[in-house]
Amino acid sequence: MEKLKDVIARIEPIEESWFEVAQKDLDALTKPPGSLGRLEEIARRLVAIRRERKPCLGRKVIFVMAGDHGVVAEGVSAFPQEVTPQMVQNFLNGGAAINVLARHVRAEVVVADIGVASDIAPHPRLVLKKIGYGTGNIAREHAMRRDQAVASLEAGIELFESEAQTRGVGILGTGDMGIGNTTPSSAIISAITGQSPEEVTGRGTGIDDEQLAHKVRIIEQALRVNQPDPKDGVDVLAKVGGFEIGAIAGLVLAAASQRVPVVVDGFISTAGALIATTLQPSVSGYLFAAHRSAEAGHKAVLDRMGWRPILDLEMRLGEGTGAILAMGIIEAAAKILAEMATFENAGVSGKI
Amino acid sequence: MEKLKDVIARIEPIEESWFEVAQKDLDALTKPPGSLGRLEEIARRLVAIRRERKPCLGRKVIFVMAGDHGVVAEGVSAFPQEVTPQMVQNFLNGGAAINVLARHVRAEVVVADIGVASDIAPHPRLVLKKIGYGTGNIAREHAMRRDQAVASLEAGIELFESEAQTRGVGILGTGDMGIGNTTPSSAIISAITGQSPEEVTGRGTGIDDEQLAHKVRIIEQALRVNQPDPKDGVDVLAKVGGFEIGAIAGLVLAAASQRVPVVVDGFISTAGALIATTLQPSVSGYLFAAHRSAEAGHKAVLDRMGWRPILDLEMRLGEGTGAILAMGIIEAAAKILAEMATFENAGVSGKI
Repeated sequence: MEKLKDVIARIEPIEESWFEVAQKDLDALTKPPGSLGRLEEIARRLVAIRRERKPCLGRKVIFVMAGDHGVVAEGVSAFPQEVTPQMVQNFLNGGAAINVLARHVRAEVVVADIGVASDIAPHPRLVLKKIGYGTGNIAREHAMRRDQAVASLEAGIELFESEAQTRGVGILGTGDMGIGNTTPSSAIISAITGQSPEEVTGRGTGIDDEQLAHKVRIIEQALRVNQPDPKDGVDVLAKVGGFEIGAIAGLVLAAASQRVPVVVDGFISTAGALIATTLQPSVSGYLFAAHRSAEAGHKAVLDRMGWRPILDLEMRLGEGTGAILAMGIIEAAAKILAEMATFENAGVSGKI
Repeated sequence: MEKLKDVIARIEPIEESWFEVAQKDLDALTKPPGSLGRLEEIARRLVAIRRERKPCLGRKVIFVMAGDHGVVAEGVSAFPQEVTPQMVQNFLNGGAAINVLARHVRAEVVVADIGVASDIAPHPRLVLKKIGYGTGNIAREHAMRRDQAVASLEAGIELFESEAQTRGVGILGTGDMGIGNTTPSSAIISAITGQSPEEVTGRGTGIDDEQLAHKVRIIEQALRVNQPDPKDGVDVLAKVGGFEIGAIAGLVLAAASQRVPVVVDGFISTAGALIATTLQPSVSGYLFAAHRSAEAGHKAVLDRMGWRPILDLEMRLGEGTGAILAMGIIEAAAKILAEMATFENAGVSGKI
């Protein structure tokens, strides 16, 4: 609990006075003012996060947090629970979508077991931070005890701090793996934002209409049974959350405390980021919403939070696949500031 | 004229039977079916264009075509004409946005003078294909003679063919530089699609409301004075086009004739691609609309043509800056097909 409190206390709001400094620098570059659109918006925020005029992102890391969910007993997912450890193995072997895309943008992948329901064979690149063997079935009980919720948040914090200290993290992307985890994510989002389960529940890996209606009823039941306190992120996490979702929230908090920009992947990561914002509203300035997921309900929560996604490629895979592609765009924005010529040094005339 | 006719005759429609082959391969990969959204759509089309199951894009090249426009005499642009050669110099020195972004995605930039109004100092990396010193003022006369329109199309064809033969082009991005060139682009789009000038005219590099109303009137006048034939792309290009726009259309045709995918940048490039489709409708299958430009009117023509943009970052710089960022996404889609593990070889269970 001390670790969590310390990190939360160290997070400062981003320095908005840097926006103006950044815009002045952007307007001096050889392009019509504002013509790089959202790249300029991203660049301004990187400057405000890093408090330097030409922030260099440095090492790009995507953290894929894995965990299982007792609520799969209710038949909310299209895939069996054994897929969670199988996919973790796939990540470690470099064959999953996140590995392919991370190589493409030259980022590194860190995989951690936060709460997979089975034991995964040891692997030099697997980080073990297991808080439990899957959560409780939220349709009938709490997902986890409150101390486990704190432990999952602190697992994320430790993961970030260890990676930052040993190899450095210039920008962090969040990712998840956990069969069934759109169900607790919808429950978290509904609990915190007050939006109805129907509004924020989608088909996950691909369930049909009937299964979707059933999933919505299960989420309504989970909220009724558990009564999470929307003002207390740890309570929401403990009652209707997930171990990997807690770790994502911890990563977000730890990165913000060290002024490292965070690229929030899709639906599950957004639920994690929401938990983090209830614990410390100032983290919001450090977050980039990577993409608008095809998961129904993602748009609703993004709109509610005022988080504008960078990409809209109708993706709904998770793993951090949206975050990794957005990271490429964010890095481009940083390079615009660092590498473009100015009107003055290129000898280009300004507006008439 | 022979060169143009030959290229047009060699363009075959993409092989749509490959879509199914590609989707089967995509569905065997370790991810829920369809969960990579538009990356899967892009991958399918790459397969149909290249007619191979795992297309490797190879060398990425962005062609920036430069030209000037007599219509600037009417006060349609926020920047003076001298900026065109100044920016060409900036491209050659590597200081423009397109250079920064091309380095970021590891693409190469080819810059050609197709019709700049002044002489640019020779440079080892500047390709000279000058058809004229700026176009005529379309508010009062034709932009160019018909033989010059053919020559500008053929300049684009020659550029592509020379680059493809000597160094290879795996995927081509289009780019433009030409103060005033949103005006002929709006005129072309209005002439070919039948949309009103008002609907397809925006602020270019940044004019105010009054200047915008004036620009719309100038475009209406250009169409009235010149009466371009919407069925004849060469006529439209000659009467209300631009040298660099013709070259972009030529690049598109040449790439399609060799089954090389084309990433169409923003507003000006879309006008060039429209000219190409009037000459050979089958080119459409080879085109990827890079982004939705913030230039008002771009959305209207994209919708009309059924071209779905990959990105929407509110950019409106031109140069190929949208194309280059989209190229990074397209390459990611190709790598998904080439590098991801299948359910079978990764030992991952399928749907319940």
